[in-house]
Amino acid sequence: MKPIIAVVGGSSCSASEAQLAEELGRRLSEAGAVVICGGLTGVMEAVAKGVRGAGGLVIGILPGNDAREANAHIDVALATGMGETRNALIVRAAGAVVAVGGGHGTLSEVALALRIGTPVAGLQDRFAGAVEMPRLESPAAAAAWAIAQASR
Amino acid sequence: MKPIIAVVGGSSCSASEAQLAEELGRRLSEAGAVVICGGLTGVMEAVAKGVRGAGGLVIGILPGNDAREANAHIDVALATGMGETRNALIVRAAGAVVAVGGGHGTLSEVALALRIGTPVAGLQDRFAGAVEMPRLESPAAAAAWAIAQASR
Amino acid sequence: MKPIIAVVGGSSCSASEAQLAEELGRRLSEAGAVVICGGLTGVMEAVAKGVRGAGGLVIGILPGNDAREANAHIDVALATGMGETRNALIVRAAGAVVAVGGGHGTLSEVALALRIGTPVAGLQDRFAGAVEMPRLESPAAAAAWAIAQASR
Amino acid sequence: MKPIIAVVGGSSCSASEAQLAEELGRRLSEAGAVVICGGLTGVMEAVAKGVRGAGGLVIGILPGNDAREANAHIDVALATGMGETRNALIVRAAGAVVAVGGGHGTLSEVALALRIGTPVAGLQDRFAGAVEMPRLESPAAAAAWAIAQASR
Repeated sequence: MKPIIAVVGGSSCSASEAQLAEELGRRLSEAGAVVICGGLTGVMEAVAKGVRGAGGLVIGILPGNDAREANAHIDVALATGMGETRNALIVRAAGAVVAVGGGHGTLSEVALALRIGTPVAGLQDRFAGAVEMPRLESPAAAAAWAIAQASR
Repeated sequence: MKPIIAVVGGSSCSASEAQLAEELGRRLSEAGAVVICGGLTGVMEAVAKGVRGAGGLVIGILPGNDAREANAHIDVALATGMGETRNALIVRAAGAVVAVGGGHGTLSEVALALRIGTPVAGLQDRFAGAVEMPRLESPAAAAAWAIAQASR
Repeated sequence: MKPIIAVVGGSSCSASEAQLAEELGRRLSEAGAVVICGGLTGVMEAVAKGVRGAGGLVIGILPGNDAREANAHIDVALATGMGETRNALIVRAAGAVVAVGGGHGTLSEVALALRIGTPVAGLQDRFAGAVEMPRLESPAAAAAWAIAQASR
Repeated sequence: MKPIIAVVGGSSCSASEAQLAEELGRRLSEAGAVVICGGLTGVMEAVAKGVRGAGGLVIGILPGNDAREANAHIDVALATGMGETRNALIVRAAGAVVAVGGGHGTLSEVALALRIGTPVAGLQDRFAGAVEMPRLESPAAAAAWAIAQASR
């Protein structure tokens, strides 16, 4: 089976975070990973765009009941109807997690990953003072790290 | 986005149920659907085999924490760590549900689908006295019904 | 710890079902059980009324995000924000389950209980043709059965 | 209905954190709150002890399937079988959350509370550099704050 990598980040993000997320999605796809994310806007949309541009597969795990809430780049939108409780599903299902930028929802995902033992790293994440985890320099480095972790 | 169809059924099943599920998986894939299932054995394995044989995409939504519990035909194994509570996720995420054979777990999925309004039908299901829902004659009819429902 | 008994049933119910549920709540409380239910109307409200009338403790496990959706007799309203996925939580948390009347949601709870091994019985339930389980004659018999099961 | 206050913190904790949690449990009970927690050891056990000592009600929302995993002071142990995904249930169900000490699991709860809008504050929590939230000086102050928030 292909490795499953979660990319998490804010539903609103800066232009440079979007660029990082899009490149990360592209590189993960080129390396053969399936990408999962929260399926909405911001970093979730940028990474999905990158995956789709590279011909990869991106699955959105949505908080609401309606798959049509997914952004336009999501291949498979799984509506959970569980609200933010779905954050735990994302990090549980992933073989590794990369956080780009991020707010409180993203921090909850990073903390849950650390708690349950899913490898997690930051790519220009906003949690420098909050949690210790590897910080990767570039989308290329993050993709390589994530795939290596998920394949262990 | 492609329609998402859930195929649900027992983790052990008869040879004829396995045959029905496998053909259903094949026909759903040929018609362009993404198939989701519980990812384990029995009907879940047979439908996944059918999807894979047709070059389609099949996602397993697993009860446990370990994606390696998925059967060998699953493309993307999403470990939920939620136990049987994941049954609700399967019918929530689907645009339509088809039940093949089935025991108590399957009955819970059929009942939840009826409760939340996800269209659900039976293909040689075992719930004749239990619930009213459409019964389809063949895998071909079930695939056509499911895709029509999920596209509404 | 006190035994935890779930009483499940429709959000709308007949007057006689309400009467059964209320007496069941009363008898469970008198026997020292904590009662859990879905927290809304119909059977859930009637059983809560019975518990409160007897000075017992009744906990409502709600589908939505707002605890104020609970009926007026609930002591502790736990909002889950998980929709009908919360049905699984009710039968997972209970030491035994009694179904009174009931529609599709209740059937999903009965089927899940049978699937995961939580003892479940019917008290004038509507699933005679659907599932095999003990049927109790009266609220007194159902309360005695449930408490015996949950204490094993 | 009584206000529901969640007290969250590590499954192992220092003696002074245990003392704070126990006093917090006592004061919350004296003020009429129902206390919910994760039901296990450390801060969860200390707060439960405080509640019980004051004659209050404390509910444990457990990660596993077995209610007997609860610590000895829990009144009502609700087994969820959802693993760490249950963290989201705790902060969703609460009218306010107080974090004492804490590790990654607690940080996930604090972050989720901030994300979904459940008022959350720290009492000698370990997240000074991680998140902005009110910090209370004492168990008495924390209890008063939490009850005021949950009553709004």
